[in-house]
Amino acid sequence: MLRLCSENIHSFFASESPDEHEPPMPRSLTSANMTGRAPGHTTGKERILTSAMLLFARTPYSDTSLRDIATAAGVDVAYVHRAFGSKAEIFRQALLTLGPLDDIAAGEPDGATMISRICDLAFLRNPNRVEDVRPLHLLIQSSLCGEARAIIAQFIDSSLALPLSRAFGHADAGKAHFALSLLSGFVTHRAVLGPADLLAIPEAVQQRMLQTALMNAMLDRSDPGIQGQIN
Amino acid sequence: MLRLCSENIHSFFASESPDEHEPPMPRSLTSANMTGRAPGHTTGKERILTSAMLLFARTPYSDTSLRDIATAAGVDVAYVHRAFGSKAEIFRQALLTLGPLDDIAAGEPDGATMISRICDLAFLRNPNRVEDVRPLHLLIQSSLCGEARAIIAQFIDSSLALPLSRAFGHADAGKAHFALSLLSGFVTHRAVLGPADLLAIPEAVQQRMLQTALMNAMLDRSDPGIQGQIN
Repeated sequence: MLRLCSENIHSFFASESPDEHEPPMPRSLTSANMTGRAPGHTTGKERILTSAMLLFARTPYSDTSLRDIATAAGVDVAYVHRAFGSKAEIFRQALLTLGPLDDIAAGEPDGATMISRICDLAFLRNPNRVEDVRPLHLLIQSSLCGEARAIIAQFIDSSLALPLSRAFGHADAGKAHFALSLLSGFVTHRAVLGPADLLAIPEAVQQRMLQTALMNAMLDRSDPGIQGQIN
Repeated sequence: MLRLCSENIHSFFASESPDEHEPPMPRSLTSANMTGRAPGHTTGKERILTSAMLLFARTPYSDTSLRDIATAAGVDVAYVHRAFGSKAEIFRQALLTLGPLDDIAAGEPDGATMISRICDLAFLRNPNRVEDVRPLHLLIQSSLCGEARAIIAQFIDSSLALPLSRAFGHADAGKAHFALSLLSGFVTHRAVLGPADLLAIPEAVQQRMLQTALMNAMLDRSDPGIQGQIN
């Protein structure tokens, strides 16, 4: 069993004021993804999913129990079990409710727009408010957690890699996975180690660097001079 | 406290046969970094460091106890304590013994050579043999571990980011950290999630993609057409 020590990744994100950086895109948590009820009339299942999102955004899968979720949702743990069957299923549905990243793929964007939207995800907001929780919060918290890994791998594949390769007009999911791996490295390195020299770069410049890196990766385009130097 | 679940990253690397891929560079573990004794005459301290390297390469910092290290080295735990003072100090010295990545910075390489050597690290070998253990094994296992994080951050800064920016003839450590974050993302994404589409790409092609991404990041060079699309 792997075990991590003190602190968690959240402490990094939480240090940012949620008001300083507005979420880059409108969220449609209650409209597109919920059952279409009038606002204010949430079902128990919806409350459970909302609570699960907030918890999974701040603590890893393995540290979040069905009891925690039930308590946060104000329902009985037996009801959570009856409604979803398992923690894995709640996690999967929480990811899908936050996704299928409809904001990112909205309007069949071209590659550059898609990259720009995906890179916005890298600059995560404070995940204490349900409207600020992004799938990447859940992915980062739990990506090293064996039980959640298969769900995460499938989510990344179908909700990020495939739409990304489609936006570039080809079906090269391997290249999309490569680009997404660079993105996750940037997010994690910045959050976990927070190197002063990197953080000293203005956020807008960091964002441009990241977009360029992902565009280059997707287009597999490099200066012939660079190739000459490498080979 | 963060806690991870089953399996660990090692299981991915261990699935590769160590004989299939030879280590890309000669290691000089016993010559440059040890005390210069005749081969076969290792001191207790050297045995402890060697054992610690092997353990830290396969299990996270928080899961590796002084007792584990002592047992593996065949010495008393009190001696380990006397010789090093703390687990943090053993970890730091194990990293430095594997580094200061003298192979990577050997001969004052130019940027492209340095990138090529660093990218070799991304294709890790089986860390069951001490001669195959690379600093990246230790970094990946323990990068999420709070106690080890400060040591890792300092190691990456002084042994990777600074030499890398120097090889490019500038002192822009922020850009080097950015490039290294992409590298770590590739390694971790590939190891943790192992997406089939990414793994289907021949390793030599993956390596070229990674080198290109890091070169582009360091040179901050992008096709003006790409910038036009992003902005």
